[in-house]
Amino acid sequence: MRVGELQTPALLLDSEALQHNLATMAAALPGPRLRPHMKAHKTTALAARQAAAGHRAFTCATIREVEGMAAAGLGEDLLLANEVLDASRLGRLDARVTVAVDSPETVETAVRGGIKEVVVDVNVGLPRCGIPPEKAGDLAELARSRGLSVRGVMGYEGHAVGLPDRALRQEICAESMALLLQAHAAVGGELVSAGGTGTYDINTWASEIQAGSYVLMDTAYARLELPFRQALFVLGTVISVSENGYAVADCGLKALGMDHGKPDLAEGGMVLIVSDEHLTIVPEQPVKVGDRVRVVPAHCDPTVAYHQRVHVVDGEDVLDSWEVDLRGW
Amino acid sequence: MRVGELQTPALLLDSEALQHNLATMAAALPGPRLRPHMKAHKTTALAARQAAAGHRAFTCATIREVEGMAAAGLGEDLLLANEVLDASRLGRLDARVTVAVDSPETVETAVRGGIKEVVVDVNVGLPRCGIPPEKAGDLAELARSRGLSVRGVMGYEGHAVGLPDRALRQEICAESMALLLQAHAAVGGELVSAGGTGTYDINTWASEIQAGSYVLMDTAYARLELPFRQALFVLGTVISVSENGYAVADCGLKALGMDHGKPDLAEGGMVLIVSDEHLTIVPEQPVKVGDRVRVVPAHCDPTVAYHQRVHVVDGEDVLDSWEVDLRGW
Repeated sequence: MRVGELQTPALLLDSEALQHNLATMAAALPGPRLRPHMKAHKTTALAARQAAAGHRAFTCATIREVEGMAAAGLGEDLLLANEVLDASRLGRLDARVTVAVDSPETVETAVRGGIKEVVVDVNVGLPRCGIPPEKAGDLAELARSRGLSVRGVMGYEGHAVGLPDRALRQEICAESMALLLQAHAAVGGELVSAGGTGTYDINTWASEIQAGSYVLMDTAYARLELPFRQALFVLGTVISVSENGYAVADCGLKALGMDHGKPDLAEGGMVLIVSDEHLTIVPEQPVKVGDRVRVVPAHCDPTVAYHQRVHVVDGEDVLDSWEVDLRGW
Repeated sequence: MRVGELQTPALLLDSEALQHNLATMAAALPGPRLRPHMKAHKTTALAARQAAAGHRAFTCATIREVEGMAAAGLGEDLLLANEVLDASRLGRLDARVTVAVDSPETVETAVRGGIKEVVVDVNVGLPRCGIPPEKAGDLAELARSRGLSVRGVMGYEGHAVGLPDRALRQEICAESMALLLQAHAAVGGELVSAGGTGTYDINTWASEIQAGSYVLMDTAYARLELPFRQALFVLGTVISVSENGYAVADCGLKALGMDHGKPDLAEGGMVLIVSDEHLTIVPEQPVKVGDRVRVVPAHCDPTVAYHQRVHVVDGEDVLDSWEVDLRGW
């Protein structure tokens, strides 16, 4: 199939950029040094490529992601890097499942759900989940007293990963990881799990990095000047051209995560308005009705979550179409 | 089932508010005066309630919405209020399908796809699709010469519908509709289709109003002081509580359309951060791990599009669970 035959809006994955990103990351963080995060692409077919590149342990954000990875035969070592209050679906899986805990309630949830292994989620500065570092040891002790195996700690420096200033990113990452190592000293275990695409080569303290976006990329991460290439695009069709210099493509709010703002046009120009099913653009080169435009999402994760399929393309050839099979909860 | 048993994040539709909104709109714009827009809720079960309230003609934004409505037996009069460049899926449907055209290319698409009826989409001031009013008559003539029946005109005053200042909203709506009526004089036909929730009682020029959000509502439309009640909520579970005054619920970017900014908390308080699967909040009343929170989306349409199901609730009772069956394209 040719890209021109795809119905739009369509999610595209550039094969060459994908290969480059997989290889670059596998060279920097080989094998178990990377625990790829499924939340970015939600696609087991892509996870299988990451496994083939040497990374066989994965990070998940939702129960559904863990379930889907187990069903796809990728359940060798799945970390649900998030708190849940009902682990019954996880306890039933034929996979190695480790769950994050940050409170006595989440420890009890793990026990009740038949989970055997946990990590202690530590707050390293991001106002989100995680127990204060000085309390991590006590929670690990509680977990062990309830029969759980504690594999170590995790702590996400999410307030650092997106900072364009590399020196500042390094500084905040170092502060965060000092807190995580403090917690690890009290908790023990083999895992110090942390990091993201923005700190993949900065965070030298963690035993494994939970990066996900590196494989797709977006305009927010592009500002960080990382060695990864833009692999993810939304393809739209120009459905209307105005005499006033703008045109309209058929990919809107329901095809694009908007929390990081408007997307960019791959071929240059400006995005004026994003409506439910319309993108009003001022392209750099004139376009006509029926032309295709490639749009670069501002945030890859919530963009992918809108799409049922992602098409792997090489120039104008569609090599493969993968189901985005880990959507929902 | 009880709301407390729902897995989160979950999309809730408050039954009482829904009934109020359906009844209020049906009283203001009875029967064919309203052509409910499917893009807001993408749910045929809810469309059936709108049909039961007297509105049997519907507006759609995508081919998939038209297809799904036809399959659900709601195809008496479906208007695809958008341009498409491949109408072959539409031409095959066992339903009355009318398609918007704004260019010779879209007229040819309709002919090629086996479409019999069109409306001329007119630009009434919003920088999006639509032909200039002074050219609408020529396009109608072209369409008729190609064997199409031209049912009239449509023109969306999308630059007016969201303005909180009612006087300004009225003024821009009046200007827009003057352009649409100018086009209609040249085009002819029984339809002058326009409007949205924000102009449902202001736009007295259109023969039918394409409102959709009224049935759900969101924080953006709430600012307009319309007589419709908030019916749509995202339900989250508190998974972590910090000693620093904030808590974290499990409904994030992938459960909420973010183009209108952060959502509100139904019970009061503040939303600090929206991450992929986390909502960091400062609730008005203290919460504990396991508590549920109801979140009011900033924009209903792209929020609904993330969810597979919507649960109709009355207090703590789940009355029904409807599939959001018109998602995708």
